[in-house]
Amino acid sequence: MPLSEFSLIQRFFTKQQITNPSTRLGIGDDCALLSIPEGFELAITTDTMVENVHFFADADPELLGHKLLAVNLSDLAAMGAKPVSVTLALTLPKVDENWLAAFASGFLTLAERYSVDLIGGDTTSGPLTLTVQALGLVPKGRALLRSSANPGDFIYMTGALGDAGLGLKIKQGYNCEHPQAALTRFNRPEPQVEAGLALSGIATACIDLSDGLAGDLGHILQQSRVGACLDWDALPLSTAVQAYINDTGDWVMPLTAGDDYELCFTVSPEQAKHLTIPATKIGIIESQAGLRLCKSSVIQPLEVKSFEHFS
Amino acid sequence: MPLSEFSLIQRFFTKQQITNPSTRLGIGDDCALLSIPEGFELAITTDTMVENVHFFADADPELLGHKLLAVNLSDLAAMGAKPVSVTLALTLPKVDENWLAAFASGFLTLAERYSVDLIGGDTTSGPLTLTVQALGLVPKGRALLRSSANPGDFIYMTGALGDAGLGLKIKQGYNCEHPQAALTRFNRPEPQVEAGLALSGIATACIDLSDGLAGDLGHILQQSRVGACLDWDALPLSTAVQAYINDTGDWVMPLTAGDDYELCFTVSPEQAKHLTIPATKIGIIESQAGLRLCKSSVIQPLEVKSFEHFS
Repeated sequence: MPLSEFSLIQRFFTKQQITNPSTRLGIGDDCALLSIPEGFELAITTDTMVENVHFFADADPELLGHKLLAVNLSDLAAMGAKPVSVTLALTLPKVDENWLAAFASGFLTLAERYSVDLIGGDTTSGPLTLTVQALGLVPKGRALLRSSANPGDFIYMTGALGDAGLGLKIKQGYNCEHPQAALTRFNRPEPQVEAGLALSGIATACIDLSDGLAGDLGHILQQSRVGACLDWDALPLSTAVQAYINDTGDWVMPLTAGDDYELCFTVSPEQAKHLTIPATKIGIIESQAGLRLCKSSVIQPLEVKSFEHFS
Repeated sequence: MPLSEFSLIQRFFTKQQITNPSTRLGIGDDCALLSIPEGFELAITTDTMVENVHFFADADPELLGHKLLAVNLSDLAAMGAKPVSVTLALTLPKVDENWLAAFASGFLTLAERYSVDLIGGDTTSGPLTLTVQALGLVPKGRALLRSSANPGDFIYMTGALGDAGLGLKIKQGYNCEHPQAALTRFNRPEPQVEAGLALSGIATACIDLSDGLAGDLGHILQQSRVGACLDWDALPLSTAVQAYINDTGDWVMPLTAGDDYELCFTVSPEQAKHLTIPATKIGIIESQAGLRLCKSSVIQPLEVKSFEHFS
């Protein structure tokens, strides 16, 4: 018996109980309804993943479900917003129950970790395309923007740089001695939700590292109308990434590879002592436009590149 | 020069000025930010349109942009919500500037009519797939649900029934004497935003007619755990739809054809006199489950059918 649109969504995506206190009405009516507590604003983001563009047909559906939600939660984290709910637009070429069960499991397991309710969606037939819209709450006036970095601010990032990029290199054939950590970082990115919340009211600007440090920091520089100098020796590189650089000479990779989903943020020197999360100081905001890298005591301009579609 | 993802969105979709007072931050950061006025809840809906499923490759992009937004605003209308903003996830096989300009024009012209801001989106390459998520405001506790119709409530609908269905028949080759009105109803649906707002606090239940009256009213009946009897002679059928029925004998079409995007709602007899919008009383809610049709003084069961994917 063919599954109807309704019973399909019903079966795989409504097992989840409503757990977030902001959800007034979930799946099943013309719209979902959300209560916004007084003193908060709503943060909204959307991301799409397309087969053969963002992932291959044989991608593990459980990891795909996780990643699709993770990249959206990462955008909320970069605003200092607490995730509350998501909608999911699924375009599927066919009903593959095993695929759907695994995809839903990856998606909902991460959702449950943050009490994120799936409050709506649309299921259509067509080439595999997955779109999430995520909603989060941030105290009024305390959202972390890209546009408010100031000259003299320190630049920090959470976690390590380039491991997801190394994971991609390994998938493309690079022979790494201990590949597992890098592969996990590439396959299963973790949104820095707690870090984003801890930075609200402390960081002056923030962005998540989805397209590479140089390009993403470049957005902060452009929108804040400032420049920056990064300190190569301060970059948090794992042993595996350092070994990759020694091995290949490709020191640009950690600066341009995407998918780390760490947060890059700026903090005034006075506020820096109030940081309560583990983070590494990697540079400084300057009034002179452009991005520079201080490497082996030489300051060189760093051309801003990030992943672009249609190019 | 190939357009980058950013400049592509920039060029066609950010001409629009921010006009809605709820928009605190639009396109350009990790998230958009929305202020929710006190005493209001947020209504959220999402709808996807896929090439070769919901429209053909040669579809007029201006009408497509209009329709994509209209179907989402129609869901907000069915909740009694005032639309405030939308995000747009565009998956495009290529950059066709003429197509994009026409699509954006259809989309943004309708958005401007209701002061709806485009506050975010994602543009990806892949098979043509269009997803909108729409956000609206409704006074707390006054959203129009599907689940609160009561036996004895009158059933009403706005506008006329079956004209979009007739438009589809004409496109499929049916020879109609005056085809233009029906074609317009099919090609350019108009969301009943004002009607939805006027029904808030008056209607007991409401749904928009996207999949056909029998199926859509069926959702109200199912979720309210009631039944209904429709009065054939009361149905608001245009002269063209009546001529189609006389010509073909296909009287089922207006009951099952989709895409009218009128509102179907229920009202208690006491509240019915407070209706301030033009609407036609088409039946009554009954405690006995199931949908029935009274036609030529005979009451017959009406099987609930609506459009289903994958079936």
